[in-house]
Amino acid sequence: MVATEFSIISRYFSSLGRGEAVELGVGDDCAILRLGNDQRLATSMDTLVAGVHFPDDAFPEDIGYRAVAVAASDLAAMGASPLGITVALTLPEADEFWLTTFSEGLARAVSEYKLPLIGGDTTKGPLSITVQVFGSLPSKLALLRSGAVAGDKLYVSGTLGDAAGGLAFIQEKWRPQPEHADYMLNRFYRPTARLQLGKSLLDQATAAIDISDGLLADAGHIAAASGVRLDIQSARIPLSEALKSHPDETQARQWALCGGDDYELCFTLPPNLPTPAGCTCIGEVYAGEGVDCDLLVDTASGYRHF
Amino acid sequence: MVATEFSIISRYFSSLGRGEAVELGVGDDCAILRLGNDQRLATSMDTLVAGVHFPDDAFPEDIGYRAVAVAASDLAAMGASPLGITVALTLPEADEFWLTTFSEGLARAVSEYKLPLIGGDTTKGPLSITVQVFGSLPSKLALLRSGAVAGDKLYVSGTLGDAAGGLAFIQEKWRPQPEHADYMLNRFYRPTARLQLGKSLLDQATAAIDISDGLLADAGHIAAASGVRLDIQSARIPLSEALKSHPDETQARQWALCGGDDYELCFTLPPNLPTPAGCTCIGEVYAGEGVDCDLLVDTASGYRHF
Repeated sequence: MVATEFSIISRYFSSLGRGEAVELGVGDDCAILRLGNDQRLATSMDTLVAGVHFPDDAFPEDIGYRAVAVAASDLAAMGASPLGITVALTLPEADEFWLTTFSEGLARAVSEYKLPLIGGDTTKGPLSITVQVFGSLPSKLALLRSGAVAGDKLYVSGTLGDAAGGLAFIQEKWRPQPEHADYMLNRFYRPTARLQLGKSLLDQATAAIDISDGLLADAGHIAAASGVRLDIQSARIPLSEALKSHPDETQARQWALCGGDDYELCFTLPPNLPTPAGCTCIGEVYAGEGVDCDLLVDTASGYRHF
Repeated sequence: MVATEFSIISRYFSSLGRGEAVELGVGDDCAILRLGNDQRLATSMDTLVAGVHFPDDAFPEDIGYRAVAVAASDLAAMGASPLGITVALTLPEADEFWLTTFSEGLARAVSEYKLPLIGGDTTKGPLSITVQVFGSLPSKLALLRSGAVAGDKLYVSGTLGDAAGGLAFIQEKWRPQPEHADYMLNRFYRPTARLQLGKSLLDQATAAIDISDGLLADAGHIAAASGVRLDIQSARIPLSEALKSHPDETQARQWALCGGDDYELCFTLPPNLPTPAGCTCIGEVYAGEGVDCDLLVDTASGYRHF
């Protein structure tokens, strides 16, 4: 429901968000609640539905890990420090193998991201997992989508398009060379939430988002929230060696621009700041609106801006 | 999955809950996170699945209201003050009538319980609603399940068994007299979360829980967590005029003991304290374990203790 998700939220639900403790409601990577004078809670919710957000035959350990990593990525995009998660698990039946392996994946991510499981709900029904993630923010700082200004530079972490390539592999639309196979699968099933990078950007970045819907779509959210135009130079977008091995370079670049699920950070920095480790400058911020990119993108799979 | 829910949580997930900010993890009505020196966050998650937690043909406005009230009830059972909610909505299709009426029910509960909607997720899939509720607690007080001691008195708020009676009406197993029909339906579809009562009990009650699984089951959780025996006198359990009109008094009393979904509070007070307004003393706390009740209960639909 990606195409209509934003319209549903704004049409039906965004008027219900006023409250004394609400500092930031619907519309960024996390909501922010004020708790006391010097502490703020950053929180976000993500649902993964079988057959929609992961293949029906995905390994339960991967489902468990991925559900936590995807939610943790929203904390990273706010620069928040991890506090914990709750998990709502809806299962057709209490299958022991499924639960054991699922909880192993969950345990791995919980330990890796320092996100203890503090509660949840288990119900009977078609398989889906909802993770609520909790993080803390200092009293004044947060990475929002709305602070980019003309003159800033645009960056991404890691490499892009790998998750889309991994999904193509899973769906048997592409068979990468054997030495790249595990890497591609892991980039889809075991995304890395960039929590440390997010925290280190807290007093530096002017805007940030995690790339879940695809670079162009998510950069578009920064452009819209900040009231600026982003210019992306496609040749600067970092690709992994594995993705570069794809015989069709246009396809690889298109995944990097439009493929979702990479969970890298996309952010803007003032021009005087150095490039953070592991990140790449891919463009500039100008007055105007929308996202421009020199590479022609297939409209059907791309962002509506094109 | 009520029967196996507790074993699933404890077997697979309860070891994943250790963390610096975690004051209380899985096992009470809410988890508690410490945020700063003087503030604590109480939070809980509830999933409602179509055909499991509400009838497939339930009116969307009722589903929206009930989803919020059920989650708010967990805050009431902790004595927490409402801060906000997030809602994960999984929908087979973006149906306008459904979304409009659902959001009207949501809006009503959000306003009534002062729980602004601060975020969420909408996904495509079989209908289910997960609500995460956020509340604040002062630095030292909370209503836990674990503080009841021998000599305390046992209380419930409101009247019990109405939601089970309402569900029997919906399922056409009982047709109440016309003057009671709306009341019975509302008690199932529009439960009242006892937020003010919970807050007023903060420095008084020794233990508390909300009645979602049925009085005997939920009193059993207090008994187990507190290490005490609860003795319930069935004749003292408050029944509504509507439920008293049921031709089979045994059935009515059984619903009051074993029916779930009432979302009244069950709590213990030291013997010197007066009965709070709108509440009824239904028994006493003794050394020992489990829940005793003078009324014989049909084992199949009752709590496993019997």
